Amino acid sequence: MTFLDMLRHAERQNRSLLCVGLDPDPAKFPDRFKGDASRIYDFCAAIVEATADTAIAFKPQIAYFAAHRAEDQLERLMAHMRAVAPQVPVILDAKRGDIGSTAEQYAIEAFERYGADAVTLSPFMGFDSVQPYLKHHGKGAFLLCRTSNPGGDDLQNQRLASVEGQPLLYEHVARLAQGPWNLNGQLGLVVGATYPAEIERVREIAPTLPLLIPGVGAQGGDAVATVRAGLRVENGQTTGPIIVNSSRAILYASGGDDFADAARREALRTRDLLEAAKG
Amino acid sequence: MTFLDMLRHAERQNRSLLCVGLDPDPAKFPDRFKGDASRIYDFCAAIVEATADTAIAFKPQIAYFAAHRAEDQLERLMAHMRAVAPQVPVILDAKRGDIGSTAEQYAIEAFERYGADAVTLSPFMGFDSVQPYLKHHGKGAFLLCRTSNPGGDDLQNQRLASVEGQPLLYEHVARLAQGPWNLNGQLGLVVGATYPAEIERVREIAPTLPLLIPGVGAQGGDAVATVRAGLRVENGQTTGPIIVNSSRAILYASGGDDFADAARREALRTRDLLEAAKG
Repeated sequence: MTFLDMLRHAERQNRSLLCVGLDPDPAKFPDRFKGDASRIYDFCAAIVEATADTAIAFKPQIAYFAAHRAEDQLERLMAHMRAVAPQVPVILDAKRGDIGSTAEQYAIEAFERYGADAVTLSPFMGFDSVQPYLKHHGKGAFLLCRTSNPGGDDLQNQRLASVEGQPLLYEHVARLAQGPWNLNGQLGLVVGATYPAEIERVREIAPTLPLLIPGVGAQGGDAVATVRAGLRVENGQTTGPIIVNSSRAILYASGGDDFADAARREALRTRDLLEAAKG
Repeated sequence: MTFLDMLRHAERQNRSLLCVGLDPDPAKFPDRFKGDASRIYDFCAAIVEATADTAIAFKPQIAYFAAHRAEDQLERLMAHMRAVAPQVPVILDAKRGDIGSTAEQYAIEAFERYGADAVTLSPFMGFDSVQPYLKHHGKGAFLLCRTSNPGGDDLQNQRLASVEGQPLLYEHVARLAQGPWNLNGQLGLVVGATYPAEIERVREIAPTLPLLIPGVGAQGGDAVATVRAGLRVENGQTTGPIIVNSSRAILYASGGDDFADAARREALRTRDLLEAAKG
């Protein structure tokens, strides 16, 4: 199954647009193993088991593993997600961006070493920094487009004098991803939930690309506005998919020993909110 | 010693502007251990020993380690560089770029786990994606500005209508890095050697920032033009430093068992070429 097949399957089977983000911070673990980086796998595995039937995707953030020398735990977690939820695609959040020969190495890391179904990438270095990922047929690649952080404005929101129609930089990225860069239909875009009007603008430019939308939950994005701005459905079929990520609000829902149960409740609540917003 | 102190010291002591890039590809190793990823450390350590007195800096590219599950070898290599060449700063080439909370994790990875003296970053997500690295006082952070790959044009060379003076995107990045983003003097820029006129333009905008210039060697950049465009010296003191990287041309200079000797010869040749270009 390709990434897109898995995504369609998980959306239908789990009736969900919710992506469970895995940003494990040992300082926020429950008291009995707070601060213990050797328990990253245990913590994340419990979250995965508790939320496997609520999610359209999982999204581990590799920085949280790399900071703690926990690549081996990430490898085990990737295998565990495949075992517990073979139908739920895994997006490795790595935001790589480098010249072709280096991008080939990062693609091996994401798709072969970790077995991810999709990866996040920065478009700053242009098409030849993206192309090596597209040689891994069936895998997905989400380009940063309009991000949910305050500094997202600094470059992404600048208007380009040198491109027809004078688009903003993020609009130009959306155009490239919907059009000339999308050789085999593998591309998607990352668009922050804190700016629903911009999700709508990206969706106009890129009607069929999957949009990965972080920023719901701890970052404060509005779930209902996000779904209305981003999701496209025709005749009961999703033609413009969205994947709405929540990380911290789910992972640290209780902070106590009931963290997995609390995570499940928060995941179900968010999933149902997103489903209801389909209207 | 801060990164900048180390850089000044290594430039003087080794009379060098040459950065030795460590992009270890087991497929290109000498026959007797070709393809053996468990020998990445051995290969790189031999290169480091052979070139330690020729370099202004070392630059390991983390993708080449990550693709081969070789983070432990990178840790050992970082320690070995410190032992063999305590005066030569190490720039971890990782091109990270993410929201603040994630950037904090990547900064821990680069500066605490690996003990790097500087790191490369993407500016695409704006200032708050850069700021967490600057909290590590004395460390350096090089922002991608104008990269040496063909796709470097795709975004970096677009003209901004919405910024005073309508700079190109890479010129805008250079301005931000020389000015408002450079809180504690820790920033530098990555500018490709394949475009000397653009190095010159970046140097106009950012007269004092260290420029990390890849693309000499295998990528075909002109060493002499690079030095003339980028280096600024006043009264015998370097006021605008450059760090000119060569990776593959040095690492795979022979391809045989004499790879370390051949690497040293190529490093000396490139170093002398760069020194002569000071004119």
